[in-house]
Amino acid sequence: MKELKGACIIGQSGGPTSVINASAYGVIRTALDSDVITNVYGAEHGIKGVLNDRLFDMSKEDAGELELLKYTPSSALGSCRYKMKDPDEDDTDYKRILEVFKKHDVRYFFYNGGNDSMDTCNKISKFMQKSGYECRVMGVPKTIDNDLFGTDHCPGYASAAKYIATSCMEVYQDARVYDTGMICIIEIMGRHAGWLTAAAALAAEYGAGPDLIYLPETDFDMEQFLSDVARVYKERGNCMVAVSEGIHYADGSFVSEAKTSATDGFGHAQLGGLAALLANVVKEKLGVKVRGIELSLLQRCGAHLASETDIEESFMAGKAAVENAVAGMTDKMVAFERGEINGHYACKTKLLNLTDVANFEKKVPLDWINEAHNGVTHDFIDYALPLIQGEPKLPKEDSLPRFARLKKVLAK
Amino acid sequence: MKELKGACIIGQSGGPTSVINASAYGVIRTALDSDVITNVYGAEHGIKGVLNDRLFDMSKEDAGELELLKYTPSSALGSCRYKMKDPDEDDTDYKRILEVFKKHDVRYFFYNGGNDSMDTCNKISKFMQKSGYECRVMGVPKTIDNDLFGTDHCPGYASAAKYIATSCMEVYQDARVYDTGMICIIEIMGRHAGWLTAAAALAAEYGAGPDLIYLPETDFDMEQFLSDVARVYKERGNCMVAVSEGIHYADGSFVSEAKTSATDGFGHAQLGGLAALLANVVKEKLGVKVRGIELSLLQRCGAHLASETDIEESFMAGKAAVENAVAGMTDKMVAFERGEINGHYACKTKLLNLTDVANFEKKVPLDWINEAHNGVTHDFIDYALPLIQGEPKLPKEDSLPRFARLKKVLAK
Repeated sequence: MKELKGACIIGQSGGPTSVINASAYGVIRTALDSDVITNVYGAEHGIKGVLNDRLFDMSKEDAGELELLKYTPSSALGSCRYKMKDPDEDDTDYKRILEVFKKHDVRYFFYNGGNDSMDTCNKISKFMQKSGYECRVMGVPKTIDNDLFGTDHCPGYASAAKYIATSCMEVYQDARVYDTGMICIIEIMGRHAGWLTAAAALAAEYGAGPDLIYLPETDFDMEQFLSDVARVYKERGNCMVAVSEGIHYADGSFVSEAKTSATDGFGHAQLGGLAALLANVVKEKLGVKVRGIELSLLQRCGAHLASETDIEESFMAGKAAVENAVAGMTDKMVAFERGEINGHYACKTKLLNLTDVANFEKKVPLDWINEAHNGVTHDFIDYALPLIQGEPKLPKEDSLPRFARLKKVLAK
Repeated sequence: MKELKGACIIGQSGGPTSVINASAYGVIRTALDSDVITNVYGAEHGIKGVLNDRLFDMSKEDAGELELLKYTPSSALGSCRYKMKDPDEDDTDYKRILEVFKKHDVRYFFYNGGNDSMDTCNKISKFMQKSGYECRVMGVPKTIDNDLFGTDHCPGYASAAKYIATSCMEVYQDARVYDTGMICIIEIMGRHAGWLTAAAALAAEYGAGPDLIYLPETDFDMEQFLSDVARVYKERGNCMVAVSEGIHYADGSFVSEAKTSATDGFGHAQLGGLAALLANVVKEKLGVKVRGIELSLLQRCGAHLASETDIEESFMAGKAAVENAVAGMTDKMVAFERGEINGHYACKTKLLNLTDVANFEKKVPLDWINEAHNGVTHDFIDYALPLIQGEPKLPKEDSLPRFARLKKVLAK
């Protein structure tokens, strides 16, 4: 494979995670250290930064600040939710991207995101191939939702899972403190895949978690739910429930749907307010004390509870993207393969075709969900537990997080 | 002062905190080690456990598990919200308490709680004095609200403050990640005192916190609020707001009031849902993307973000209660006095009369609130910053919290 000299762009897209910047740092650090990559640019707000020719020169950043990206939540370069059109229908954006790539001699494009971002990445890759412009394109996965196809798990998932499990354990202590009982309903992110909500089962595994867990992989039945909650409350005097924001009735309509009608840029319904809605229903039907808690953005930016395993793997994904691209690979997404070393969990990277990854969603296997559809089996615990291990040495300043402070110097 | 041999009871009351068990451990450990205290009982669900003669024999617990109480959130012995009647009107409960005290030869009573608990403690103390039954009564303060009279600060406040500041810093990163702006409204606990909400200013001090902060110490004006938010959003492209659940209009009515009408045992309005309410108002008036986040129970049980200073001081408060009672003191609450050692923050205990403490609320000084009533001055930062310092060495099991597991053996 011939050596390809040129600049690279790293962009971040979609909802941020606690560790997406660790992947970006994996790309940036490895690219800066490469002999082949001539310039390292960070796109402001993902692909929009390319379209607007707003590129940060990453070589102008302080090395120490860049390293802090490993512990800085959210997308430091800025993110976007921008749906690329089908190039056969409208190739305006693609032509513009090619123009900007040519202007800066960009020969490597790394895109750090979830399902929709892999679709963007794939379309750009195919357009560049068709145009005969040599540019190696690599997807670097991230999503707290853990729903990317073909990878054992996704960078960002484990840290959110750890946040959810830990928070559930703490709330469990609090929500049963009085001599009078309480029902506590915790709403967890995940539109179509229940991976995050299932993470609440880790808390239960350690003796302080939800009694009932409802995932979007199965249909939700309000009567059955009320009956489950009433039974647990009667038996145990308290009841803690974890629900995915995406739970839906048999007809496919979201349980939360009545609450909002706004949609995001990809046509997804803007969910939220489900915990409050269910709390009201339970209160009305069962007449007991109920509290609804929505973990909201906290669960996807709670870097102080990140998994060190997740941070290191996220970094590794970014590093592998650059190394493989420099070695000649293109049109791929970095993925994880789970293995074992001396009986312990191990993880290595592999490459998947972007075409195979884009727009497929991986859900929790149905045989990991219990028969009553209100909990998960031990298969899930075995899957998730190794991922959340390890405590990062978080840089702090006066006992508060010390996040990366980037200068964001625009490339000329 | 003559030595008083006999048993002691420790009870916990009111809303739990991340570190109330550190105070309980301070009492239990010191009492178990005392030559004068013959038995150490933990009351199940505070004063209700005394009334029901449900007392746990703390000597039956494993010492290592007891030590884990320092890192275990919520009230391990169970809490209650039980309003004691005025003994001049109805002394039934007091007579019953005296009966249980006599049965177990209880000569020391430690009550771990907030304002309402100090009122309970005070009434019991006065009744015992009137009855001629020698029993030394000590209040051990706790409240995330930080609103107890006469003490520089309250055990439990700093850990909640640290949780709030850290979470605000993380959400700040997340809530401005897109190329389109967003308004984020964070609802923080505190009915009448704004100490907790003010803690969001610590995040802003470190470059990643709310633009606007509204405390219940001043009257809330919806028009002014909308105008503040619109101005900041226009100037900065994003806006983050911290509001106390207890913000109220000039006529005293809670802004959240329209939402619920349920009340707790003390006649307080059950607040909540304010963030969603304000988010709806802002969305309607300003037509931009808004997200409301309620920190809910998470902020008062987030032991994983506890302040080591808070944990040690909470332990010290419990220890001081026992030591002072054994030395002959009674009818007091342990309080904190701030000092300096070699130019650094230091804290020591002092004793206050229960009568002086009960039912008074300490609020954020008005001259610590800015003129526009939408932020706090640096006086608050200077006050709060030393309190949140220090990272506890949290015991973990498979990277999840390892909380105390008590046997709770009932005394005969």
